[in-house]
Amino acid sequence: MTKFDEATQAIRVDETTYDVCLDPGYGIGGPLNGGYLMAVMLRAAVDASPYEHPVSTATQFLRAVPPGPARVRLEPLKTGRTAAMTRATLVQDGTAYVEALITTATLGDGPGDWAGEVPVQMPPVEECLPLPAPRPESNMTLSTRIDLRFDPPTVGWYTGTPSGRPESRAYFRMAEPQDPDPFVLALAIDALPPVVFSAGARGWAPTVELTWHLRALPAPGWLRVLGHGRLIRDGWFDEDVEVWDSAGNLVAQSRQLARLGRG
Amino acid sequence: MTKFDEATQAIRVDETTYDVCLDPGYGIGGPLNGGYLMAVMLRAAVDASPYEHPVSTATQFLRAVPPGPARVRLEPLKTGRTAAMTRATLVQDGTAYVEALITTATLGDGPGDWAGEVPVQMPPVEECLPLPAPRPESNMTLSTRIDLRFDPPTVGWYTGTPSGRPESRAYFRMAEPQDPDPFVLALAIDALPPVVFSAGARGWAPTVELTWHLRALPAPGWLRVLGHGRLIRDGWFDEDVEVWDSAGNLVAQSRQLARLGRG
Repeated sequence: MTKFDEATQAIRVDETTYDVCLDPGYGIGGPLNGGYLMAVMLRAAVDASPYEHPVSTATQFLRAVPPGPARVRLEPLKTGRTAAMTRATLVQDGTAYVEALITTATLGDGPGDWAGEVPVQMPPVEECLPLPAPRPESNMTLSTRIDLRFDPPTVGWYTGTPSGRPESRAYFRMAEPQDPDPFVLALAIDALPPVVFSAGARGWAPTVELTWHLRALPAPGWLRVLGHGRLIRDGWFDEDVEVWDSAGNLVAQSRQLARLGRG
Repeated sequence: MTKFDEATQAIRVDETTYDVCLDPGYGIGGPLNGGYLMAVMLRAAVDASPYEHPVSTATQFLRAVPPGPARVRLEPLKTGRTAAMTRATLVQDGTAYVEALITTATLGDGPGDWAGEVPVQMPPVEECLPLPAPRPESNMTLSTRIDLRFDPPTVGWYTGTPSGRPESRAYFRMAEPQDPDPFVLALAIDALPPVVFSAGARGWAPTVELTWHLRALPAPGWLRVLGHGRLIRDGWFDEDVEVWDSAGNLVAQSRQLARLGRG
């Protein structure tokens, strides 16, 4: 069992209740990463479902989540012939922190009937850049668990030369040896620095809503995580992410609505 | 009060319960249109919120919804300084039909800080085409309530010449005189024929999940509703829609995950 598998374990208490222990290793400056939290909730939802894969997850982030023991409460909404729907709530000390509407189904491994092109070509991974390790006191513990290699123009903001448009792109893999699966994809889809950093914004940018869809099971190897935004307005921005696997398939797609940081 | 305002009215019973009467005039072959149902649920959520606008709506469609009396049940999740979150459930005879996680906030009318380009130029509205009125026995009553003028290549499927890629684009306005508002946008964002018709698919394509974000208040006049898909695979497809107003602003964006029809 990998560290990530262990950190996302959901222990069944009864049909609709799972105990989890939220690992401080997936923090971004104290609060836990949203993708990690989705992975934990999806473990519970998939365990309770007759279907194997979390095909759709719509998530509302109510409050910043600290590490520690927590519960996932499930409310089954419908079990149909091809998919099951459930509501999942992440609860600590009686307070709801994250809400999700989850659809599970079992995906096959046939080819697509129609597939769009990859929206942006990435340079080879050798020409992409890791960011320097953050200072330990920053509590950016997530950065030690994942390996990101950035498309250089999209981390120009780090050296004071932002590209001027909301974008963020990187190769992604787990720091420990682990092939991607749907739970790793939940982490990958929310692992990039906010796209607005490239447009000149800084600071904590809290996600309000994030919906992602699992479109295929990922092949082993590096993932390409391609993020961009369409509009920054009135303190709100959107971030659209596609994840492509090493076999050239679109495996996940997401959009989040977030607030601009005040930093 | 317009017909649409009346058809989406939500009458407050108590703090968390609203009575609604689902109007058979927004049907697509019997079941009601998903955008119409979202508009009804948003009326209740906005009425109960201290904020004015439905900025984010994540919706799970559990069952096809027939016309008639129904209830919207709200469960307030959090009221913060800039936004409020609530869960909304559309219920008929004790059965849940639609679930939504809704975020309300109050949008300003300042310009965007950064805005992407319109993804596709539409020909002028005079060069776009209405589809012929459906036969009355088809129960496509929605088509009498809205006025759609299609970008010709995206309705080639209607005459047996689909474009070969998932796309659907049209000018949109209400059939009766009514300026667009956030509730009209909820209708507009799910009003196009499924994008997969252009890729050769036919038949009822049930939406499983649809998330949309309100990005700005729309100016009066025609809306441009621009839809495309990225992947058709394993019986599932995505449909991504942007709505642009007559002043050239991106006012709403959505993505839905749906099942291919068997027709």
